Amino acid sequence: MKPISRVVRLGAGSILVLCALFAGIDVQAQTDPLPSWNDGAAKKAIVEFVDVTTTQDSPKFVPPAERIATFDQDGTLWVEHPMYSQVIYCLDRVPVLVKAKPELANVEPFKTVLSGNREAMAKLSMDDLLKIAAATLTGMSVETFKAEVTKWIAEAKDPRWKRPYTELTYLPMQEVLKYLRANGYRTYIVTGGGQDFVRVYADEVYGIPPEQVVGTASGTKYGYDKSGKPFLTKEPRLLLNDNNAGKPQGIHLMIGRRPYAAFGNSIGDRQMLEYTAAGDGARLMMLVLHDDAKREYAYGPAQGLPDTKVGSFTQALYDEAKKKGWTVISMKNDWKRIFTFEP
Amino acid sequence: MKPISRVVRLGAGSILVLCALFAGIDVQAQTDPLPSWNDGAAKKAIVEFVDVTTTQDSPKFVPPAERIATFDQDGTLWVEHPMYSQVIYCLDRVPVLVKAKPELANVEPFKTVLSGNREAMAKLSMDDLLKIAAATLTGMSVETFKAEVTKWIAEAKDPRWKRPYTELTYLPMQEVLKYLRANGYRTYIVTGGGQDFVRVYADEVYGIPPEQVVGTASGTKYGYDKSGKPFLTKEPRLLLNDNNAGKPQGIHLMIGRRPYAAFGNSIGDRQMLEYTAAGDGARLMMLVLHDDAKREYAYGPAQGLPDTKVGSFTQALYDEAKKKGWTVISMKNDWKRIFTFEP
Repeated sequence: MKPISRVVRLGAGSILVLCALFAGIDVQAQTDPLPSWNDGAAKKAIVEFVDVTTTQDSPKFVPPAERIATFDQDGTLWVEHPMYSQVIYCLDRVPVLVKAKPELANVEPFKTVLSGNREAMAKLSMDDLLKIAAATLTGMSVETFKAEVTKWIAEAKDPRWKRPYTELTYLPMQEVLKYLRANGYRTYIVTGGGQDFVRVYADEVYGIPPEQVVGTASGTKYGYDKSGKPFLTKEPRLLLNDNNAGKPQGIHLMIGRRPYAAFGNSIGDRQMLEYTAAGDGARLMMLVLHDDAKREYAYGPAQGLPDTKVGSFTQALYDEAKKKGWTVISMKNDWKRIFTFEP
Repeated sequence: MKPISRVVRLGAGSILVLCALFAGIDVQAQTDPLPSWNDGAAKKAIVEFVDVTTTQDSPKFVPPAERIATFDQDGTLWVEHPMYSQVIYCLDRVPVLVKAKPELANVEPFKTVLSGNREAMAKLSMDDLLKIAAATLTGMSVETFKAEVTKWIAEAKDPRWKRPYTELTYLPMQEVLKYLRANGYRTYIVTGGGQDFVRVYADEVYGIPPEQVVGTASGTKYGYDKSGKPFLTKEPRLLLNDNNAGKPQGIHLMIGRRPYAAFGNSIGDRQMLEYTAAGDGARLMMLVLHDDAKREYAYGPAQGLPDTKVGSFTQALYDEAKKKGWTVISMKNDWKRIFTFEP
């Protein structure tokens, strides 16, 4: 008996088979990829979509290069109520802004923000908010902006949970992101929020790198500092309003492929889901319904939920979803856990 | 002796080591990754850059996620002389356009293009070309445009080589693309050409997928056909002029990371190279100089080469490159072979 030679005679091919077998054991041992989801239509839709698009001999198989899934952020991946985090960021920046430009202290809407009067602030118009956004999101270099957001996101806390906003992501959706990626999908954020803003933390918070964040984007200006080093300055010139029809437009501009799966939670995501659904083969369209007043918030106004300013999920969108076979995710019924910090 | 148990006792870890060893044999056996390059400063700069940024214990190691390399297309990856392929496409489309809109037959600049008078066509102004571009590149759905370009690119031939334009890519640059990708770099095209145009063939021709093509981009309009199916229509509204300062702006917009390596061939690439060079650590900036009148073309006007309308490599850019340590690639001296179809 010549045991060594027997091993050697296995050769490269057999070693590869052995490797595959070891990999196979892992596959066998895998547990539920979506443990925070209750069994039901929503969870089933996700698992079936992944199976049917990633099984080699499936008639609906999707080649890895084409596996694109897009996710709205506010209200879909993390809490958006009662105010988008980026709006809070802009409001938080106003005192710093006024320190640099004291002449703004008596100019509206900055005066109202400085007053700290929450009721008055809640009544600010969209036009007021756009003025605040332009003043706090543009006019600085890309690097300065990144540093400011990095600092804020590490320090700011949500008043209800008293935790950083980055902890207010939905665990079930984090599981979907990971599950899709484990099956060869590239996950993109397609947000109405600022592209530069979300890119600062998306990699750490969602595992989504900057080049996979599509968002509302303004132009930049190329220039040189005193030493001749070039830098980009953020300008108020809007390039892409990544809401409503802007979402499929942004997807075409930035990705150039139609998604196979799209996740949203409001009328601002309607066109993205329609655009996704218009492709051939298996497509997954899902909408998160905020119907859990106890564990998170309940607003809509679909299904008689209270109407609020943010993330409007209308009854018309609900009816469209039902009619077209899109899946509505009930936070109350479909999600076993919502946050990692809750049992 | 219990040979089987000895094998089994190797365990999973040892199998992985064996796999690594087999992989190692391939690495040992690897040949020159840039066989179409002559030995010299340019080839050396590429190989050293890859070594220093991908060797784990190198002080200039770059994590894989950050490995971005950007390439201009016209004149850097394929022939741009005497006319950009996309301009030829637009001119070729004019007869089809006039068939659909006969009233254009007697309107300039369409009348001149229809005449087929090459001399008159060569004198068309930039404004004329923009009119032709708007008429032939916009006004149709994204899908229709893609189908039209796909058909053209399969049929159109360069008059000098009598081959499809897609065969006029530079073999040495194709080797650089592959070499960088084999070392964990993601390769992007950053072109003054139309983003939608280049995306049609970039995957097949360069191995670069649509989401890694950044180019001059116009807006799209979201709408529905009679059956209620949504589609995007290409509009003449310019979003990004991806030339000069537009290149770093486009890189920030579409990638959100600074490249570690950038390749160009004209003053339109200057800012992209400056922006790349302004980053920390090892950066590679390269410019292709068309100085081979025999095998391709010679134009500049750097180093006394003839000045032409396309891809201007000025003496000022040449001097900047030399001063800043960017590498100028001489097609004549650095490239052993230029095209795959030539010996």
